[in-house]
Amino acid sequence: MITVLCGGVGGAKLVDGLAAVLPDPSALSVVVNTADDCDVWGLRVSPDVDTVVYTLAGLASPMQGWGITGDTWGALEMMERYGFPAWFRIGDRDLAMHVARTARLREGRRFTDVTASLAAAVGVRPRVLPMCDEPVATVVRTPAGRLPFQEYFVARRAGDAVHGIEFEGVARARPTPEVLSAVRSASVIVIAPSNPLVSIGPILALPGMRAALAASPALRVAVTPLVGGQALKGPTVEMLRGLGMPAEPSSVAGMYQEFLDVFLLDERDRAAAPAVAAAGAGSGRRLTVECADTVMADAPGRRRLARDLLRIARARGAAVPPARSE
Amino acid sequence: MITVLCGGVGGAKLVDGLAAVLPDPSALSVVVNTADDCDVWGLRVSPDVDTVVYTLAGLASPMQGWGITGDTWGALEMMERYGFPAWFRIGDRDLAMHVARTARLREGRRFTDVTASLAAAVGVRPRVLPMCDEPVATVVRTPAGRLPFQEYFVARRAGDAVHGIEFEGVARARPTPEVLSAVRSASVIVIAPSNPLVSIGPILALPGMRAALAASPALRVAVTPLVGGQALKGPTVEMLRGLGMPAEPSSVAGMYQEFLDVFLLDERDRAAAPAVAAAGAGSGRRLTVECADTVMADAPGRRRLARDLLRIARARGAAVPPARSE
Repeated sequence: MITVLCGGVGGAKLVDGLAAVLPDPSALSVVVNTADDCDVWGLRVSPDVDTVVYTLAGLASPMQGWGITGDTWGALEMMERYGFPAWFRIGDRDLAMHVARTARLREGRRFTDVTASLAAAVGVRPRVLPMCDEPVATVVRTPAGRLPFQEYFVARRAGDAVHGIEFEGVARARPTPEVLSAVRSASVIVIAPSNPLVSIGPILALPGMRAALAASPALRVAVTPLVGGQALKGPTVEMLRGLGMPAEPSSVAGMYQEFLDVFLLDERDRAAAPAVAAAGAGSGRRLTVECADTVMADAPGRRRLARDLLRIARARGAAVPPARSE
Repeated sequence: MITVLCGGVGGAKLVDGLAAVLPDPSALSVVVNTADDCDVWGLRVSPDVDTVVYTLAGLASPMQGWGITGDTWGALEMMERYGFPAWFRIGDRDLAMHVARTARLREGRRFTDVTASLAAAVGVRPRVLPMCDEPVATVVRTPAGRLPFQEYFVARRAGDAVHGIEFEGVARARPTPEVLSAVRSASVIVIAPSNPLVSIGPILALPGMRAALAASPALRVAVTPLVGGQALKGPTVEMLRGLGMPAEPSSVAGMYQEFLDVFLLDERDRAAAPAVAAAGAGSGRRLTVECADTVMADAPGRRRLARDLLRIARARGAAVPPARSE
């Protein structure tokens, strides 16, 4: 059993690669950030869950990084005429997910169960697990005030300086039993190359989550979200700097310090390995740094990184199956 | 001020004709049946209100009799994959109406106000008034059991024998203040050529509605929904027979008996005029029967019938403006 903690696009690509190379994709569990969730037009939108589901279903739009490929925009045009905000661009096929999810939630079902049934309906075999069933909302503190995450990220295009990040509701939320079970029973836990502050951060902020990761017998491996000083997607660099941290892999390793076993650095950043190892060493434990090509430019790139991850885990004694051959 | 009571397609066509020939379309109020309303995918769908709004906005699909012309079906396809019923076919642009309406209703706004704002957003100038703000649901008694109206009408294609019709919730519902005002202040009230049992019937079943119509100083004119023994749309003939009534204009006139002044019969049915006059005469009042071509095959046909109606009303002394010339 492999468990991945992830946010949106970068994490979804790695999960897609793992699903493609594992002999049994249903042995893969994906714990997904839900603190980006928002209500749009009275419907519950869960951007990271959607991205993971659409990517695994082969529906994701590779050009946009969100939504469904080849989608149409009739509903959005009408919603705009009706005076509803249109900055959160929901395509027609994408809209069905939000309508379906909202309908099921209003019937009183758990978000975890609703997600499982919608993902299964589009042929997704890995288990897609929302990090919690309670609402948690990322709020970004900026010079322009406290902004809900999607307003900061989509409406204002991540253009504001970030002075702080809060996860509203996280103290009352709990990792679901399914999430805790996926953490406890995994042989490998992968922290995906997602934004450590607003994608992985909310998952780790759930009460009990860091302790569960520290107590897990799994090999815990993080994949760097930074390559050559850049994030491949999103405002990770700007956010780290805004919070007074160097935009370096060592900052990321430091955030995972008390539970991480292996940090997978991009081979372009090999020189940073000692700093990463130092930053990520917890009290009485060592952090191993490995290097690989972590850029997933296409589907073969996703599979290549997934294979490298499995190889590294097996080399360290984790009980993972050999990757399927090309 | 002209007020029309109506259901879906037939009524919407006449309203569209009136809006086209009146010098000021905002002097037109349309009281629309809402007993066909249903929840689809957790969204509030109001088929007759939608048909009236789409028709007046120039968005209606002339081929289908419902929905928006040229609509796409991406959301419907996905909803079907997610395991939701797809027999109620909602197009992508049409879906926006139901999402928008549901969002506004969940904010606690009145259906009347929500409808006014959505109709205005697509350029509709007549006042479109839901008959009431409370939920009322038509249930059809058939040999297969009690069927919600849309299940009888759409899913089962009106194929069951009708033994009875009930309007659940109607005793607790009330005509809105806007509806009562439109009835009281009208110079002409038109009963559209809609199904008298399930389109006009629920409006008349609202407590106080028949009394308000009887007390109105307006000239009250009904347009026949039957031409040559046929309904141009829908199961009016089958329903009348199922309830033990002849499928004749006289049956329709009888239902409006205590308030009607003029029955506009199709010229093809001129021979039925004496029977209609007899059936529609209330205690101490006479029913005048007029004849015209009531078939609205196209936009000029809608305007022609609207002009004939205005001419008949003016000839009987009603304060209506002359129709705009072609």
